[in-house]
Amino acid sequence: MANSFHSSDIPYKIYLSEDELPQAWYNVRADMKTKPAPILNPATHQPCTFEELSHVFCDELVKQELDNDTAYIPIPQPILDFYRMYRPSPLIRAYFLEKELDTPAKIYYKFEGNNTSGSHKLNSAVAQAYYAKQQGLDGVTTETGAGQWGTALSMACSFFNLACHVYMVKCSYEQKPHRREVMRTFGAEVTPSPSDTTEAGRRILQAHPGTTGSLGCAISEAVEKAITTPNTRYVLGSVLSLVSLHQSIIGLETQAACKKYGIKPDIIIGCAGGGSNLSGLIAPFMGEQLRGEAKYRFIAVEPASCPSFTRGKYAYDFCDTGHVCPLAKMYTLGSDFIPSANHAGGLRYHGMSSILSELYAEGQMEAVAVEQTSVFAAARQFARVEGNLPAPESSHAIRVAIDEALKCKKTGEAKTIIFGLTGTGFFDMTAYKNFNDGTMTDYIPTDAELQRSFDLLPKF
Amino acid sequence: MANSFHSSDIPYKIYLSEDELPQAWYNVRADMKTKPAPILNPATHQPCTFEELSHVFCDELVKQELDNDTAYIPIPQPILDFYRMYRPSPLIRAYFLEKELDTPAKIYYKFEGNNTSGSHKLNSAVAQAYYAKQQGLDGVTTETGAGQWGTALSMACSFFNLACHVYMVKCSYEQKPHRREVMRTFGAEVTPSPSDTTEAGRRILQAHPGTTGSLGCAISEAVEKAITTPNTRYVLGSVLSLVSLHQSIIGLETQAACKKYGIKPDIIIGCAGGGSNLSGLIAPFMGEQLRGEAKYRFIAVEPASCPSFTRGKYAYDFCDTGHVCPLAKMYTLGSDFIPSANHAGGLRYHGMSSILSELYAEGQMEAVAVEQTSVFAAARQFARVEGNLPAPESSHAIRVAIDEALKCKKTGEAKTIIFGLTGTGFFDMTAYKNFNDGTMTDYIPTDAELQRSFDLLPKF
Repeated sequence: MANSFHSSDIPYKIYLSEDELPQAWYNVRADMKTKPAPILNPATHQPCTFEELSHVFCDELVKQELDNDTAYIPIPQPILDFYRMYRPSPLIRAYFLEKELDTPAKIYYKFEGNNTSGSHKLNSAVAQAYYAKQQGLDGVTTETGAGQWGTALSMACSFFNLACHVYMVKCSYEQKPHRREVMRTFGAEVTPSPSDTTEAGRRILQAHPGTTGSLGCAISEAVEKAITTPNTRYVLGSVLSLVSLHQSIIGLETQAACKKYGIKPDIIIGCAGGGSNLSGLIAPFMGEQLRGEAKYRFIAVEPASCPSFTRGKYAYDFCDTGHVCPLAKMYTLGSDFIPSANHAGGLRYHGMSSILSELYAEGQMEAVAVEQTSVFAAARQFARVEGNLPAPESSHAIRVAIDEALKCKKTGEAKTIIFGLTGTGFFDMTAYKNFNDGTMTDYIPTDAELQRSFDLLPKF
Repeated sequence: MANSFHSSDIPYKIYLSEDELPQAWYNVRADMKTKPAPILNPATHQPCTFEELSHVFCDELVKQELDNDTAYIPIPQPILDFYRMYRPSPLIRAYFLEKELDTPAKIYYKFEGNNTSGSHKLNSAVAQAYYAKQQGLDGVTTETGAGQWGTALSMACSFFNLACHVYMVKCSYEQKPHRREVMRTFGAEVTPSPSDTTEAGRRILQAHPGTTGSLGCAISEAVEKAITTPNTRYVLGSVLSLVSLHQSIIGLETQAACKKYGIKPDIIIGCAGGGSNLSGLIAPFMGEQLRGEAKYRFIAVEPASCPSFTRGKYAYDFCDTGHVCPLAKMYTLGSDFIPSANHAGGLRYHGMSSILSELYAEGQMEAVAVEQTSVFAAARQFARVEGNLPAPESSHAIRVAIDEALKCKKTGEAKTIIFGLTGTGFFDMTAYKNFNDGTMTDYIPTDAELQRSFDLLPKF
C-alpha cells in the first residue's frame, strides 16, 4: 500500500463494519471470583432488593444491576439500531503522535467523541431510555454536572419519544449555556439545581440562598422528582454496575478490532471519575485476565485533585452528598469531600464504581493521579498532531499514554498502548482558555483535608 | 442480515476504506465548455496574471486557480496522510428520517462535520497549508467570519508547523470566544478586526470608532498583513476555483460510495454561501452531466436573507467590501450588500463562486432560497431522529431535502436524494436558543434594497 507515514498494514482508523457490532454486552462480574459488594439500603444496612430499587429505577435496569452471574446479556434490536447511527466507533492508530514522541511504542485510541452528545455516555443513555420506554413509562429524570450525561440522555429520550427532566447543577447551567441548549433542542426540560420544583431543592435554597448547587443536591432533586411524578423513574449515567455493563460495548469493539488486525495490547489506559468509561473499555480484556487467558496492565487515571483510588478508602459510603441514595462499597474520598474547581467536571466524583473498586483492591489494575496543567499540556500536544481536540476528562488518559510511550523510548520497548478517548473538548474551551492564558493552577488536597472527610464516613 | 429498521443491504453509514480515498482532485472546469470568467485586476480590468497573484497567494495555489484544463490533479502524499486522519467521511443513509417523514424517497447525507474543525473547510485548509510549507513560507494570514475556516486553517498550520494569523470579525470574536479559543489552542494568533495592526484596520477604526467589523474589512487586513510580512502569503477558504478543486474530495468519495453500493442519485442538494461545499459535492456528478453521461437535479440552497443566485445579478464584482481583491464574474448582490443578521454566518456572502455561477447561468443546476425559521425547524427535526446536530448552514440543505422527500410522499416516487451535511452545530447554540425560545425572525431584503446595492456594481 502506497503510504508515506507508516509501513504497517494497519490503517489510521479501524472501523469495524456494522455487521461486526457486538450483539451482547459483557458483564465482567460473571468472571470475578469476589463479586462487587452489594449496594445497601441506607436505613436497614441490608442489600437493596429488587422491590426497593424498582421504585426509583426501571425494572429491567434493576435486574441488570443485581445480576452478578450472566456473562453476556443480549442487546435489544432497537438499541442496536440506535448504536448503528454512531457505532462501531473507530479505533485509531496515533501514528502522528508516535512520530512526534519518537517512540517505538504503538499507540491506539478508541474514540467515543464522534457523536452529537460528544461522549461515550450515549452508550448507556440509549439503553436506559429504551428500557424505560419498554416499561411503558412516560419519562425519566436525571442530574447532570459537566453536561455530557444530560446531553446524551436528552438525545436518547428524544429518539424514543420519552419526557426527560434534567436537573443541571446551577453553576454549570450558567457557565455552560450551550450544553443546556443542546438538551433543550432535543426536547429535554432543564432545571438549574437547586430549584423550587422539589422539597429537597427548596430546603437547600432556604438554608443557602446564594448556592450554585452541587451534584449531590441535583441527584436528590432528580430522585425526588422521579418518585413524585406518575409513571416516571430516575436514571444515572455512571458508578452503577448496569452502566459498566452497557459501556462494555466500548471494550468489546476494541477487542474485536484487535483480534481482526492482530493487535496485542500491553497497556490499557482510561480516565476514571465514576468509572463508566474505564470499566467499559477494559471489561472484556479484564475478563481474559480473570479467566487466566491473558495478562494486561490496566491503568486508571484520576485527577490529583480528586484521587479516589490513589488516596481514598475502600469502604461503604453514600453515592450522593444528599445521602438519599443507597450505600455502595467503593474507593471513596467521603461523600462530604468537595473537589477543588478542577475543570474536568466529569472526574469530580468522590467515589468509584464498585466493580472497579473490587478489581483495584484485588490488584488486578493500577491507578495513577495526574495534575491538570500536565493533562492540558498533553491534550494540546495530542490535538496539534492528531487533529482531534479532546475533552479534559479524556486527556487524563492521554497524559499517561504519552508518559508510558516516553518510557518505551528510553527502554526501546515497542509496547502496544491503547487508551480511551471518551469525548470531544468542544464544550470545554473555557478550561482550554485558562491553560492557553497560563492561568491554570493545580490543587492537591492535603492529608488533613482528606482525613476530615474520612472521619464522616458512615460507621457500621 | 438481522435488521429491524431496514431491509436494504445498505448499512446506516457507508465508510470507504482508507485505500479507497481518492488520489487526485477533480477539476470540473476541464469539462465545462464555457470556462468560468477569469478574475480581473481591479486597476487594469485585465485577467490577473500568475505574477500578480503570486504576490498575495502561494505559487502552487495560483497555478491551480488559473488551471481550467487539467481534469485530475494528484493529491500530494502528505495531504493524503492528513486526510486519513478524518477521511473518507461517511455517507449516511438517513433511515430514521425517512421513517419519520414516511416517504418512499431514499435519503443520504455526506457528513463533513466529523473532524475537530467541525466542517468541510479542513479539506482545503490542509492543502493550502501544505503548499505554503512546500514553498518555504514562514506563515499565512486569513480572515474568518463564523469561525469554521479559521479553525480549520489553524489545525492545518499547526500540523505543518506554520505560523497562522487569523483576522476574526470583531463581533464574532466577542460572540464566539470558544471558536477563538480552539484556534489559539492550535497555536494561531487571532486578532479581532478591525485592529490597529494594519493600515486598513486603523483607517476603519478612525472612521468608525465603534464598529464591530465585517468580513470585507477582515479580508483587507489579512491581505495587507500577508503582503507586509516577510515570507508570508494570504489564503482564502471559499469562492476561489482552487477551493472548489480541493473540495471535490467530498464529491469523489460520494461518487465512489454510490458506485460501490449501486446508489443512483436523482437529486443532489447542498447549501451555498461562497460555494465551497456545494461545488465540491457536485463536481464529479456535474462532470458526468457535462460529458453527457448522466443527468441529475442539482439544487443550491441559499438563505432568503442573502439570495445571490435567486435574486442576484450575474456580473463582475469585487470579492470583498474593501475592494482590495480582484474582480470576479459571479452571481452577486453587490459587494456593498449587508445581509441581515442571519445566524448562518457561513452563508452571509454577497457573491457566489465563478464556477457555480457559470453552471447556474447555463441552466446546469437549480437554486432555492429558504427562510431561517424553516431551516431551524428542519435542523431540529433531523437532529431528533438522526442523532446529529447540524450547523445552521448545512441545515439549509436539510430543509430542501425534506421538502423534496415530502414531494415524493405525495407522488409515491422513490427518488434517491443526497445532501451535504457540511458541519456540526456545536458552535451555533446561540442561534438554536433563539429558535428554541421562539424569538427567531426571518428577513427578506426588498427589491429596492437590492437595487441600491446593484447600482453600486462596478461598471465596465
